[in-house]
Amino acid sequence: MNGDCQEKTAEKIAAEMKETGQRAKAAARILAGATTEMKNSWLLAMADALEADEALILAENAKDITSGRLNGLDDAMLDRLLLTPARIKGIANAVRDIVKLDDPVGHIHSSVIRPNGLRIDKVSTPIGVIGIIYESRPNVTVDAAALCLKSGNAVILRGGSEAIHSNLALGSCIVKAGTALGMPKGAIQIVRNTDRAAVSAMLKLSNYIDLIIPRGGEGLIRSVTEQSLIPVIKHYKGICHIFVDAGYDTAEALKIIENAKCQRPGVCNALETLLIHREIAPSFVPKLMEHLKSKGVEMRGDEEFCALAKGGAVPAVEEDWGTEYLALILSARIVSDVKEAIAHINQYSSGHSESILTNNTANAEKFLNEIDSAAVYLNASTRFTDGGEFGMGAEMGISTDKIHVRGPMGLAELTSYKYKIYGNGQIR
Amino acid sequence: MNGDCQEKTAEKIAAEMKETGQRAKAAARILAGATTEMKNSWLLAMADALEADEALILAENAKDITSGRLNGLDDAMLDRLLLTPARIKGIANAVRDIVKLDDPVGHIHSSVIRPNGLRIDKVSTPIGVIGIIYESRPNVTVDAAALCLKSGNAVILRGGSEAIHSNLALGSCIVKAGTALGMPKGAIQIVRNTDRAAVSAMLKLSNYIDLIIPRGGEGLIRSVTEQSLIPVIKHYKGICHIFVDAGYDTAEALKIIENAKCQRPGVCNALETLLIHREIAPSFVPKLMEHLKSKGVEMRGDEEFCALAKGGAVPAVEEDWGTEYLALILSARIVSDVKEAIAHINQYSSGHSESILTNNTANAEKFLNEIDSAAVYLNASTRFTDGGEFGMGAEMGISTDKIHVRGPMGLAELTSYKYKIYGNGQIR
Repeated sequence: MNGDCQEKTAEKIAAEMKETGQRAKAAARILAGATTEMKNSWLLAMADALEADEALILAENAKDITSGRLNGLDDAMLDRLLLTPARIKGIANAVRDIVKLDDPVGHIHSSVIRPNGLRIDKVSTPIGVIGIIYESRPNVTVDAAALCLKSGNAVILRGGSEAIHSNLALGSCIVKAGTALGMPKGAIQIVRNTDRAAVSAMLKLSNYIDLIIPRGGEGLIRSVTEQSLIPVIKHYKGICHIFVDAGYDTAEALKIIENAKCQRPGVCNALETLLIHREIAPSFVPKLMEHLKSKGVEMRGDEEFCALAKGGAVPAVEEDWGTEYLALILSARIVSDVKEAIAHINQYSSGHSESILTNNTANAEKFLNEIDSAAVYLNASTRFTDGGEFGMGAEMGISTDKIHVRGPMGLAELTSYKYKIYGNGQIR
Repeated sequence: MNGDCQEKTAEKIAAEMKETGQRAKAAARILAGATTEMKNSWLLAMADALEADEALILAENAKDITSGRLNGLDDAMLDRLLLTPARIKGIANAVRDIVKLDDPVGHIHSSVIRPNGLRIDKVSTPIGVIGIIYESRPNVTVDAAALCLKSGNAVILRGGSEAIHSNLALGSCIVKAGTALGMPKGAIQIVRNTDRAAVSAMLKLSNYIDLIIPRGGEGLIRSVTEQSLIPVIKHYKGICHIFVDAGYDTAEALKIIENAKCQRPGVCNALETLLIHREIAPSFVPKLMEHLKSKGVEMRGDEEFCALAKGGAVPAVEEDWGTEYLALILSARIVSDVKEAIAHINQYSSGHSESILTNNTANAEKFLNEIDSAAVYLNASTRFTDGGEFGMGAEMGISTDKIHVRGPMGLAELTSYKYKIYGNGQIR
């Protein structure tokens, strides 16, 4: 009986999600032809509406905070969930910033005239319908919706149950503001159903959804990838490395390492593992220990590093090399040369961001060429892997995949393309 | 007992496939740094070796033909399976043509200097390891391997059991020729195991394989998409349309329609559905019937078309609009304007190729903008959607997806990119 019931519920959810997908696809057809002016007018109205609806949004957010406390969410999670007047203002301003960015649709990538006279234009188009599956932070609801809308895509947003009141409040606020100015219904939809079956049903809708972007922890991303029949772009963990080569200025190296590890340790482009050339290790490690201890960094090293650190470092275990600490912890290892550094990184890295600090041009080029990661740096902090720092203006996240988009995903990366071909009677 | 045995076999196959994946990944690291000259020398040696090993390859192919006959394959399938001296020469020459193409790796898509002095180069790289899952035609073994190699990717090839002897003979021939000149082992691997469990195991290897390209019928593609944890680029069916607008020259329209339908009806860019403006239908349909009857085309029409065809057409059923005939059959429908034509196409098309025949600029632009397909034509045959015709030189297939690649997939589409970032001490 219970099994029957569950099956009925799953069927009902699947039917609801299919309708959501159909509405999104219909809206996407209209959005593909929307002018930049139309899209910007909807976005500006949304930014204003978010500020006007502040009281209502805060009241709904308070419900999530109350149940979050009852459900035992820790302080960090509650903070991620919390909206304040300043945060709402920040969300609204982020939308206004997206208005200022160039429209990525209609860009002519190339135009060639073939020997038979056919003119083949490769032109950027929206992808169509994008599904976003995310956790806790309610600002994602608005950020993701605004980025999808500006790039002409319809979006289906499925946030976590812990933020459902906040997400619905933010969502209905921006949808109301947009549709009042002619935005098609179905352009932005928030999934109300917090049942996991809704996500499963969504991931089967390959006839209606063109791309899934999961944003959240490793567990969420794995589960989405395993279930999805729709292409997924993953914004995965960042196990970022710096290799300090022999001969590089020590003070400069310490400045860059400190920045990469300490400036914001909880983000995906923060440093997690430091590799040090054996030749400089005896002089470099004591200075590093002194410098990072004062910043409160816990060190975990291989045997050689620990010996040089004279009791200041905990021995690293195999697991450390594959761990994204997201905290003031740094693993460190002594290597014999750039080749060994590259081998370590290509084995343990998550393919996000790595940096070499060197004055040796040959080593620099070897590192930049042979490291298989989205962003590979010479003499700079890994912290620059970010849509804003890359000049994209805003980003949906960072892809550690190699298909469609690698590294920061801005507006241009939310487009596909088509070929528009002009003939005058050509046959084959 | 039997269940236990099957489980053991599946485990053993999974372990074998994992080793295959590991070898491919190790080879991919080396291939990423291979020069154009090295890759071309391997390819030229392969082309020569194919011709030198003709007798051996034909003998192995004969085994597949014999078992194909015993297993009741039809003539079309046997023909697809068959190798001849001329076909082997053709395969070798196709490899030589790939040698002549530009190396797609190392292309600088963009280079910007940020206000903080960081120089960010976006540079094309190989994707890494590509898995190809395909049916019958043994030439795919060599074509796909050569395209992957030229673009610096390692490849794992899993052909159909009906072509296993041919595929292994072609594969060992080119692998031997390449490795003799220093190509890394694992750059090209043919899966010997014809068990379906080998495909299932392959599709789980997301740590080793970066992209799966299935080539074959709808059943194969669906099964691969459903099982894969790895991104899949689909080369799906082509339900291609032509819309004849009012006012377009009748003789010109008939010439283009005949070409799109009859020149090679078994391919994915051939015409399957014709839409005709109501205004011209009474005069156009009789001429069309006369013209296509003489070419042996069977017509299936909506009620209005059938009436105008005066018994020359079979009534179309709903299923016809979504069918890829791959034969001399054409479905036809009368529509009231370009808007109705676009609505029909966006509902039934597989997103491959569509064409409008018109002198009306506004209708042309509306069609080219609003049709959501990979290639949209004005006044030309749909038959041009093809890597060669687009100037790509060779192609892996045609994508009807919108992620990573849309339309013909040439060498450039077999690459990813990374950001190489040059600094002088930048921190954030």
